[in-house]
Amino acid sequence: MPERETAVTTVSNILSQRDLEFLLYEWLDVESLTARPRFAEHSRETFDAFLQVSAQIAEREFATHNKRGDTEEPRFADGKAHVIPEVKAALTAFNESGLLAGGLDAEDGGLQLPHVVHRACFAWFQAANIATSAYPMLTMGNANLLRTYAAPEHVARFVAPMVEGRFTGTMCLSEPQAGSSLSDVTTRAVPAGDGTYRITGSKMWISGGDHELSETIVHLVLARAAGAPPGVKGLSLFIVPKHVVGPDGVPGRRNGVDLVGLNHKMGFRGTTNAALSFTDSEGFLVGEEGRGLAYMFQMMNAARIGVGAGAVALGYTGYLHALAYARERVQGRPVAGKDPAAPPVPIIRHPDVRRMLLASKTYVEGGLALILYAARLVDEQHTGDTAEAAEAALLLDMLTPIVKAWPSRWCLKANDHAIQVHGGYGYTREYPVEQFYRDNRLNPIHEGTDGIQGLDLLGRKVTMRDGAGLSLLVGKIREAAVRAPAELGWMAERLEAGCARLVEVTGKLWSDADPTTALANSTAYLNAAGHLVVAWMWLEQATAAAGREGAFYDGKRLAARYFFAHELPRTTTWFDLLESRDTLLADLDDACL
Amino acid sequence: MPERETAVTTVSNILSQRDLEFLLYEWLDVESLTARPRFAEHSRETFDAFLQVSAQIAEREFATHNKRGDTEEPRFADGKAHVIPEVKAALTAFNESGLLAGGLDAEDGGLQLPHVVHRACFAWFQAANIATSAYPMLTMGNANLLRTYAAPEHVARFVAPMVEGRFTGTMCLSEPQAGSSLSDVTTRAVPAGDGTYRITGSKMWISGGDHELSETIVHLVLARAAGAPPGVKGLSLFIVPKHVVGPDGVPGRRNGVDLVGLNHKMGFRGTTNAALSFTDSEGFLVGEEGRGLAYMFQMMNAARIGVGAGAVALGYTGYLHALAYARERVQGRPVAGKDPAAPPVPIIRHPDVRRMLLASKTYVEGGLALILYAARLVDEQHTGDTAEAAEAALLLDMLTPIVKAWPSRWCLKANDHAIQVHGGYGYTREYPVEQFYRDNRLNPIHEGTDGIQGLDLLGRKVTMRDGAGLSLLVGKIREAAVRAPAELGWMAERLEAGCARLVEVTGKLWSDADPTTALANSTAYLNAAGHLVVAWMWLEQATAAAGREGAFYDGKRLAARYFFAHELPRTTTWFDLLESRDTLLADLDDACL
Repeated sequence: MPERETAVTTVSNILSQRDLEFLLYEWLDVESLTARPRFAEHSRETFDAFLQVSAQIAEREFATHNKRGDTEEPRFADGKAHVIPEVKAALTAFNESGLLAGGLDAEDGGLQLPHVVHRACFAWFQAANIATSAYPMLTMGNANLLRTYAAPEHVARFVAPMVEGRFTGTMCLSEPQAGSSLSDVTTRAVPAGDGTYRITGSKMWISGGDHELSETIVHLVLARAAGAPPGVKGLSLFIVPKHVVGPDGVPGRRNGVDLVGLNHKMGFRGTTNAALSFTDSEGFLVGEEGRGLAYMFQMMNAARIGVGAGAVALGYTGYLHALAYARERVQGRPVAGKDPAAPPVPIIRHPDVRRMLLASKTYVEGGLALILYAARLVDEQHTGDTAEAAEAALLLDMLTPIVKAWPSRWCLKANDHAIQVHGGYGYTREYPVEQFYRDNRLNPIHEGTDGIQGLDLLGRKVTMRDGAGLSLLVGKIREAAVRAPAELGWMAERLEAGCARLVEVTGKLWSDADPTTALANSTAYLNAAGHLVVAWMWLEQATAAAGREGAFYDGKRLAARYFFAHELPRTTTWFDLLESRDTLLADLDDACL
Repeated sequence: MPERETAVTTVSNILSQRDLEFLLYEWLDVESLTARPRFAEHSRETFDAFLQVSAQIAEREFATHNKRGDTEEPRFADGKAHVIPEVKAALTAFNESGLLAGGLDAEDGGLQLPHVVHRACFAWFQAANIATSAYPMLTMGNANLLRTYAAPEHVARFVAPMVEGRFTGTMCLSEPQAGSSLSDVTTRAVPAGDGTYRITGSKMWISGGDHELSETIVHLVLARAAGAPPGVKGLSLFIVPKHVVGPDGVPGRRNGVDLVGLNHKMGFRGTTNAALSFTDSEGFLVGEEGRGLAYMFQMMNAARIGVGAGAVALGYTGYLHALAYARERVQGRPVAGKDPAAPPVPIIRHPDVRRMLLASKTYVEGGLALILYAARLVDEQHTGDTAEAAEAALLLDMLTPIVKAWPSRWCLKANDHAIQVHGGYGYTREYPVEQFYRDNRLNPIHEGTDGIQGLDLLGRKVTMRDGAGLSLLVGKIREAAVRAPAELGWMAERLEAGCARLVEVTGKLWSDADPTTALANSTAYLNAAGHLVVAWMWLEQATAAAGREGAFYDGKRLAARYFFAHELPRTTTWFDLLESRDTLLADLDDACL
């Protein structure tokens, strides 16, 4: 085809260094973290250096095989999962950067980077190649969990090699019959008498579940110990390596963990996604029996932020590709001057193309702000004073379902717009935007579907501690409204009104304590709260941009204006629906469908 | 994988015979058409027979290779496009049914079926295999155009073989530099002196543009005759067969039409989509020079309804698959009784799953109603009395952008929901719903993007004949509101209010006659008008179901209620935006993006 090969992906259309700098330094004042003991060795210069090296490795080692990883997906042969060689090379480059241990303590070989900086660095890899970035993301989450909850000898045996890049990690929660419903997990753990357990069962949807990229794979497996009660209270967490690992840290014989098959996905194809069979495999209990889900939630909460970040990254790169295309592609004339003899214009001149681009900008930049705000809370939680840390932990807990679900929906919308801006070309595999769209479609599903996030937000987060999380969130939004300069007063007012509505509707929903009625439209609640939170993120950005000149800051102001004028009004419909307490869905007779 | 192979697609999850019967007979009173001379040979029995044979062939010959057509896409080799053999077999079965000439006159070998019945029959094929159904769809559109505008000898030479299934047809409008902007078409036509022309140029995105499925391919090519003015007024339409066809109707030598390459798409993979090169190829003028676009619009308008119908069909089959899965798949417990010892329930018991299913039902059944209503207007246009025919033509013209764009967006949403209902399984290629989603993503692009449809509706259709089209549409909606029984009074009121708002906003938009301002948010206008029109379709269905008992009719009532309660309120946001006459998009400095 004449237009078959398109421009090579470069740093400039992976992610925006300028936007990251604005968010990190001009808004979140990340530099001030260097005053804290944990980050005392760091400075803006070291942060910038890690951001820059991330951009470079992402461009050179990750973006370059994004397409190939999609077209030549992992193959299942001889009981193994075979992955294209570029993945191993990319992971090696990533490991050598030190970022695999970016957040860990120096004494564990870590960089002690603030989480918010580490998150920003990692976004480069997610935007360049979401599938390959999944391997280190899972390994880091796994290592962090074990670092917190596992016995010291297990940390030494399993975490150290993961930090060195020799082992990789997974999380094994789902089973073929139990995805969202973890209380139905049936994998069994029988004590072997020597302090270890024998694990038997089937696990499904295991990302990075098998491959030959590392010396072995450290699976974290939710299972039910003998005699444990039904439901989630009976779940314990076990370390189950693919190979038996001796005290010397060298993997030996296989450990009864077999690859049953690979799932063939619509996108995210470069990440192996496996069905695994555990047969009397040797497992090591993490912490105490019956606390498995609680431990797992540390990794899952981090993974949920990671999923949101991945969704933002995919939406962001799609937006940048669409923007570049719209500036180059010449076609048609503006409505006002349809003289056929006039030269055609770049399609960025057409209002509907601008609408899609500006809407996408609000989704991806608003999403990135949300992700980095959440990551900044993680730092506050770990390095703030006691009161700050407690507040940050509560706010993060409250925001997590939104941080996971909002970008998964709206940055996917940005990918949808990116296809549409490209027209017919965008629908072809000669251009990268269709892959971003397919890749991003996973994000509303894994690590808890949108439906699960809605139930978590309205059924658990909003009601926890007598509504303390909701009060805190609303308080934070109102603080931002008060802080906003006068010229943003109309946005501040709308945000205040939105908060009032959120509180009022929440109160009405829980007024009669019938959870079925209250939760009937929990997804609408998630939508409304999500749009309100992202409007807050836009007011924050517009405030940070106030009084500053130049196209970049004008862009932030315009995008904020667009979000408040065109997006925030959507919340009215969702709130109205919630307030109506319509029980149509709960009451409906299935036979009518 | 254990769950690799899923249930075979059968009639019951392709499309709903029951719903078609309801729409055709209980609402649109299609049986009454048999009183008209053109349809006098028909009866409900013949209609039912064609519907039934369509369902059977769709199940046996089309659905069976839908997956294979996706995974083994057409290959470009030796200058030819190679297609899997099942496609040819399916087209032969389709041809043998007589449906290829379903709408044509008996004297031309046609069945003289009402268009609405023919459209319903064809929906079975689109739902079973959208890619394979594209070949006959294009051929029928091509044949109909030539039947109307071509010289009798060209009808004899090209249309008759198409009706027999020996030739297939295409439409060749776009060029690599001119997709939405046909005024930039540069393909040239030079008179050869013998009444024929020599055509030279490049055409892009030609569906069915090359293959070995027929003896030859009849291309309808938009080109600029020597000395023609710039813009669309300089475009003429030419018949350019792939092979020179002698007066005996037998294809001979190649005619300077070369396959340059195939586009590799995200979905719709079974339909070859070609870049074609025309080099001094022999072409025959259709009608008069300079009228090419006007003729093409007959085919394009039909194709736009066809695209809407395809979008509905894909959404519909996705919904039926999701519904079947939700009834079978057992997981989790209802919110109100989270006893882990209680047995898990089918996921259709979970409110959020019901929400997705019910929303999808309103999209796909509402979309099908819209398509068949439009098809019924085609019959009115061709067989009604003079006044009825003129009114139907005007209303159809008015509705066409909505008929094309609304299902393309909202039935795609149903496909999105179908994936979500399936959870992780829905994201895998082991289940068919991800293919439906990929296939349907083309529909907002081809035959005029959503952006083009919005401009057509607000810039052309609404203003034509001093707003006669809009008045007629609103009048029709109000008639339905008046006709509605008392128990549907609240829906009728909301519909009346929506009409009033539509008229008011339209007037304000055009009050200062600055098209740039008026059209700045034309996509929001398309969205608002589309949702209003589909709400009307739901009131029509609820009215037709009034007083009837049983789950099917209860389902219609519930869906209508859902659409009015959960969907129609979206229009408020769009209307508010339009009324604000926000010129942000038009004014925006591109450098800010």
